[in-house]
Amino acid sequence: MSTFGTLFRVTTYGESHCASVGAIIDGCPPGMPLTNEDIQPQMTRRRPGQSNLTTPRNEADAVQIQSGVEAGVTLGTPIGLLVRNKDQRPHDYTETDHYPRPSHADWTYLLKYGLKASSGGGRSSARETIGRVAAGTIAERYLKLAYGVEIVAFVSSVGKVHMPESSTDSDLLSEDYLKLLSTITREKVDENTIRCPHAETAQAMEERIMAAKARNDSIGGTVTCVIRRSPVGLGEPVFDKLEAKLAHAMLSIPATKGFEIGSGFKGTEVPGSEHNDAFVKKADGSLGTKTNRSGGIQGGITNGEDIYFKIAFKSPATISQEQATAKYDGESGVLATRGRHDPCVVPRAVPIVEAMAALVIMDAALIQNARQTAASLLPPLETPLPPSMSLPPKKVEEKMVKEIVQEQQA
Amino acid sequence: MSTFGTLFRVTTYGESHCASVGAIIDGCPPGMPLTNEDIQPQMTRRRPGQSNLTTPRNEADAVQIQSGVEAGVTLGTPIGLLVRNKDQRPHDYTETDHYPRPSHADWTYLLKYGLKASSGGGRSSARETIGRVAAGTIAERYLKLAYGVEIVAFVSSVGKVHMPESSTDSDLLSEDYLKLLSTITREKVDENTIRCPHAETAQAMEERIMAAKARNDSIGGTVTCVIRRSPVGLGEPVFDKLEAKLAHAMLSIPATKGFEIGSGFKGTEVPGSEHNDAFVKKADGSLGTKTNRSGGIQGGITNGEDIYFKIAFKSPATISQEQATAKYDGESGVLATRGRHDPCVVPRAVPIVEAMAALVIMDAALIQNARQTAASLLPPLETPLPPSMSLPPKKVEEKMVKEIVQEQQA
Amino acid sequence: MSTFGTLFRVTTYGESHCASVGAIIDGCPPGMPLTNEDIQPQMTRRRPGQSNLTTPRNEADAVQIQSGVEAGVTLGTPIGLLVRNKDQRPHDYTETDHYPRPSHADWTYLLKYGLKASSGGGRSSARETIGRVAAGTIAERYLKLAYGVEIVAFVSSVGKVHMPESSTDSDLLSEDYLKLLSTITREKVDENTIRCPHAETAQAMEERIMAAKARNDSIGGTVTCVIRRSPVGLGEPVFDKLEAKLAHAMLSIPATKGFEIGSGFKGTEVPGSEHNDAFVKKADGSLGTKTNRSGGIQGGITNGEDIYFKIAFKSPATISQEQATAKYDGESGVLATRGRHDPCVVPRAVPIVEAMAALVIMDAALIQNARQTAASLLPPLETPLPPSMSLPPKKVEEKMVKEIVQEQQA
Amino acid sequence: MSTFGTLFRVTTYGESHCASVGAIIDGCPPGMPLTNEDIQPQMTRRRPGQSNLTTPRNEADAVQIQSGVEAGVTLGTPIGLLVRNKDQRPHDYTETDHYPRPSHADWTYLLKYGLKASSGGGRSSARETIGRVAAGTIAERYLKLAYGVEIVAFVSSVGKVHMPESSTDSDLLSEDYLKLLSTITREKVDENTIRCPHAETAQAMEERIMAAKARNDSIGGTVTCVIRRSPVGLGEPVFDKLEAKLAHAMLSIPATKGFEIGSGFKGTEVPGSEHNDAFVKKADGSLGTKTNRSGGIQGGITNGEDIYFKIAFKSPATISQEQATAKYDGESGVLATRGRHDPCVVPRAVPIVEAMAALVIMDAALIQNARQTAASLLPPLETPLPPSMSLPPKKVEEKMVKEIVQEQQA
Repeated sequence: MSTFGTLFRVTTYGESHCASVGAIIDGCPPGMPLTNEDIQPQMTRRRPGQSNLTTPRNEADAVQIQSGVEAGVTLGTPIGLLVRNKDQRPHDYTETDHYPRPSHADWTYLLKYGLKASSGGGRSSARETIGRVAAGTIAERYLKLAYGVEIVAFVSSVGKVHMPESSTDSDLLSEDYLKLLSTITREKVDENTIRCPHAETAQAMEERIMAAKARNDSIGGTVTCVIRRSPVGLGEPVFDKLEAKLAHAMLSIPATKGFEIGSGFKGTEVPGSEHNDAFVKKADGSLGTKTNRSGGIQGGITNGEDIYFKIAFKSPATISQEQATAKYDGESGVLATRGRHDPCVVPRAVPIVEAMAALVIMDAALIQNARQTAASLLPPLETPLPPSMSLPPKKVEEKMVKEIVQEQQA
Repeated sequence: MSTFGTLFRVTTYGESHCASVGAIIDGCPPGMPLTNEDIQPQMTRRRPGQSNLTTPRNEADAVQIQSGVEAGVTLGTPIGLLVRNKDQRPHDYTETDHYPRPSHADWTYLLKYGLKASSGGGRSSARETIGRVAAGTIAERYLKLAYGVEIVAFVSSVGKVHMPESSTDSDLLSEDYLKLLSTITREKVDENTIRCPHAETAQAMEERIMAAKARNDSIGGTVTCVIRRSPVGLGEPVFDKLEAKLAHAMLSIPATKGFEIGSGFKGTEVPGSEHNDAFVKKADGSLGTKTNRSGGIQGGITNGEDIYFKIAFKSPATISQEQATAKYDGESGVLATRGRHDPCVVPRAVPIVEAMAALVIMDAALIQNARQTAASLLPPLETPLPPSMSLPPKKVEEKMVKEIVQEQQA
Repeated sequence: MSTFGTLFRVTTYGESHCASVGAIIDGCPPGMPLTNEDIQPQMTRRRPGQSNLTTPRNEADAVQIQSGVEAGVTLGTPIGLLVRNKDQRPHDYTETDHYPRPSHADWTYLLKYGLKASSGGGRSSARETIGRVAAGTIAERYLKLAYGVEIVAFVSSVGKVHMPESSTDSDLLSEDYLKLLSTITREKVDENTIRCPHAETAQAMEERIMAAKARNDSIGGTVTCVIRRSPVGLGEPVFDKLEAKLAHAMLSIPATKGFEIGSGFKGTEVPGSEHNDAFVKKADGSLGTKTNRSGGIQGGITNGEDIYFKIAFKSPATISQEQATAKYDGESGVLATRGRHDPCVVPRAVPIVEAMAALVIMDAALIQNARQTAASLLPPLETPLPPSMSLPPKKVEEKMVKEIVQEQQA
Repeated sequence: MSTFGTLFRVTTYGESHCASVGAIIDGCPPGMPLTNEDIQPQMTRRRPGQSNLTTPRNEADAVQIQSGVEAGVTLGTPIGLLVRNKDQRPHDYTETDHYPRPSHADWTYLLKYGLKASSGGGRSSARETIGRVAAGTIAERYLKLAYGVEIVAFVSSVGKVHMPESSTDSDLLSEDYLKLLSTITREKVDENTIRCPHAETAQAMEERIMAAKARNDSIGGTVTCVIRRSPVGLGEPVFDKLEAKLAHAMLSIPATKGFEIGSGFKGTEVPGSEHNDAFVKKADGSLGTKTNRSGGIQGGITNGEDIYFKIAFKSPATISQEQATAKYDGESGVLATRGRHDPCVVPRAVPIVEAMAALVIMDAALIQNARQTAASLLPPLETPLPPSMSLPPKKVEEKMVKEIVQEQQA
């Protein structure tokens, strides 16, 4: 359906040529400062045509909060918001409409609904992602204010051009790469239009995209995202493990084909003895892990280390090249889609990935808040827990579970 | 939470040393023949120690249906089922319990809940998957009876030993591999204990596992799954695209680190012109795709082609090697886990992947049934739809949308 | 939360002084004709000030569909809709704002959220019901087109002025009253401004309201609603029995204090021997009940008889009389709310009740569609069911379960 | 479906003649002492045949916790529990099985599912309520330990025999009755087998029931329930107002026909000037209401006053009297149900009502915990809120919103 989340619940509407696209965000905590201007930057980062325009189109995709905010502060009630569509005319029927576009949703929408929007695959339009980005930005704002959470995504590959991630002698991510994950900022990411923070690679990626464009072709890529300073304890065993919710969120973004967290697919090739994240006492006395192959999640629950993951985006299906295919009626033919198309979408996918990540963390944090507060209201146990169910009885450092949890909430 | 699905809803309970593990399956269609014996085979395939035991432990993990079935037929009411735990004693506290096990859930359960089961990460136990397999087997039985759906998973890699998937000159899956996907059976998969249908690779995989075992180490791998004859039109835009639900389901299985569908991560490197799945008229007159890089899903909706995907399982965290790590109190030390451990879990993961796949398809099919039936009850439109929203007006073959859909339901 | 329903899912937003109020309706079947004009009549019936204005304010509360509809036909995707608020200025702070209004939500919103909208109880505003009515009207339109469902509500009491429901010698509803339920239309209901179909009673009700108005006081009442031609088999045991969903829906309407279905509270006083609804063969050969004390629902499931229920609305809390109460700071004082207030809301509640009834039936019908279609796709049982689980083996009339169900869907 | 709740989620299974009935409770806070013995007393109160047996059947309906508890303490993971059915034989087919029992669910289950359990309406069996009572008892235990919540239900009428609730000159509840609500205990309720705390009325009720029994007839009644010391701020606008959730919960209990909260149906007859609950400063400095016609809820949100409501239970459908009715095939006939039947169920309904009340409050408290904790983590606003959105600027007593909320959680 068009709803995501349990306690922080986002519902979106809208397709390409309707009056507006929008969203209702239900469950935003009350008392948070929020204006249209707080949402707009990520909306603008999501917009098409950014890299080719020197003048920013400030007027475009302007978000309008409808409800749930008064005097610039959230009320705790649903936040309605919308963005007007400029082109609200239904799509004109042309010769190309005899063809379901290959690897598009024209045909599957027709199969599912028995009819389709004139523009094709209805809600599979990129315009649908506007509501996600707006909602995710609100979630992110809360997480930043309450916990100092930082979410940064960037382009990690375009076609076969990959950022350097591992050293030559290992399948695991290099120290340098993990350091980049722990420090990367959106400002750094936006230094080039590709949104790849490795300048050399960004240059090669740009060339790869230009080559695709020159051939009226397209090319895919991957986006990597890191979530820093996430509260611990997020994720709900067993079906709503945090990585499961992240995978769900990411694979719901149009054109995605894969997701991996932590060491991912490469990690399957590394023996357990190398792959395990040994524990270590941190500078502040708390327990952490020496390495972070787990990607900040163990047993489906966040452990306080950086959460990082990668998403695969296929090459865009819309290309201006002629394609041999068949019409709806099965007759063979050649389809040539007119107009200018984006040869590579991964740079624009960056804020969408960040938005979906924020929605997952926000919802999980609210659910964990409920449990943690509930547990804290119980009177102390009369019989202490056996040591196997609690912390070992001796030599317990001050900086342990309770303190970590309390710090998260301070 | 411990519930999965909307209309076909599975809720599970149980950890390692409690009285039983079990599940409630709500939403199973009435009128389906079902006995304990229909569920048992997949339960048995999931059991540990299969390959080393010549005598099958028939008595073990025996599933007991509690409700929802009478005279061997489902009533449409919730099916309760349980499997007794043999060892119900709480875990004895030993020296090793001073240590949170590296890359296990001991520490994160403690962070999340403030206490933990004596056996460690509670619900992160492999025993938790029993309920999933039982529930998935019921879903699969329905899908087989109603639609002829076939779900087959197999081991596609162990460590660096991979089944041959592509030819040397392409990043895309080879014709041979796609043919294997379209024909592979569980019988074929079970011909060797590794559950890899490529005999040569299976041999190399077994050697790889033995090597890990010899070093008291462990090794990961991947499982590939194909769903054939899925109904068309499944998957709910925008947040519950079918691939998003599959990713959610798969990443909820313990020890998973990645998911890719269709061409997956490799597909991001192939230009759109090669990657697009052109349409073609099939032998029966219906519309299909010439290739299937999409993996049977476009715009989040099934198109009737084979659905196939791959899941990454990390190397098991439990190894008998000594590990330098820290205790709960932060003190450094060396942990040596005693006992015999499974050096590689992917063969046993095969029925779990199949079960979760069945749960996703089943739930999506019920939701699509609701919509399709509802749409079919509307009177015909007085004004016909414009051609851009429907099928083109001329030369429409008989074998079109409506017929395909009806056939699915015949 | 602000979402209602499982497969036909309505999410609303908006309070008194924000930019707009609106809703997203997710799960409307595709292929249904729908325009703003189809929704407007119930919106207009809901509007305040109808009875005092000779000129209808056609421009007011104009609903604007934003998405999910093209060429006047639903696409199956979410329908966004909104109604602009005319007065979008935040409420000016005055002396009366020192007081939480008695029996209003000012105080509880402050307790719940820690702050409140300047207009008082935020979403407890009557304006919130606009989204419900719009959504319910769409549901009702579908139910009418697909099944011929008829939903009619009316005012059954104002203060102590009640419509005649029972004869003097019985606590059960009279034949006359049940006949009225089976024939009443909205046109008939709207013949007077009170919306009570019993002319004499309507006159007395109007006098009762005028008396309240003259004293700057207010008065409550009840609304009765009947749903005719509902599909059979609706309602989900055990927690989502149809009457439970109806009660939930009705008690979510502002100012409601009670709900009763069928014979209701009075029925508790009648012995089982009189209260039971005996079965009888109907003219068309199908099985029906001779009486209908159950109100069309048995065991939580609709049986095809008329569904009827009554809802209690308390006397409006806003009155112009001076009220001795306390300020937020606990200081005693006298609150005099200025302005003109509606002394009785039940006439305007009529379309809101109808809307919520439609939402419940629509969602239940979609869920039952899913099950029924799924069951119909199973192959016939090899061993026939024992007679205790099916229809008796002999003398089964043609017009039985299957036919009734099929007829519902024809 | 068979699931109730969002964060405290109960799923039940089981019908009359299956192996067991049971439930999974997901979301119970960790760290709460819990044993089978804590659950058993309410199970025993629910059991049939209590009043006629001098020897308590201790062995009957013995609940067995399966999971989620170790060392007598909840782990925070799902609690599986079950109660064995003694009679697991399928129902023998007899002459009476040709008849759908009037006002039972036999016929509607057949309509809904196309088949039915041999015992009749499957899940509509009273045995289904076992899972609810077990789950509700766990919720209640938490609420008692964490907040001191007290939930007490009692029988308020049997047939036309009603407890005195109002004085003769008013439709509103009397001071005496409200005092009874604020002090009544389960011990007091259980002083007689009718579970009516007004001894004289209890005597008359018993006679009424004996009269029904003598005629092989049955009689209905009402149960009233009070929830004391509920946390403030519970209930989710707009569709999940607390009274809406309570109504849903109560109308999901078998045989219920009505629900009213606070002043209820009678309150609709009282003018607003009398009905409004004026505010008053309480002894402890906090704000309360002078009267409590609202029943502890305003705008769908709890205000800290007693929550009280009444539920209508129809006369049991199963009677030994001969009933003229029709067979499944439409043929007229006379049905005589053999065996001994309970002529009045309201005394046994008392613990079921208490259980459902606890489930509603528990779930609402967890959801409110999530919001409140989230709001508390936000940094203070830079610009203070306008007075219309907050507490008035002057003369604010110390004992205000924040303190009340904190106290609830202290």
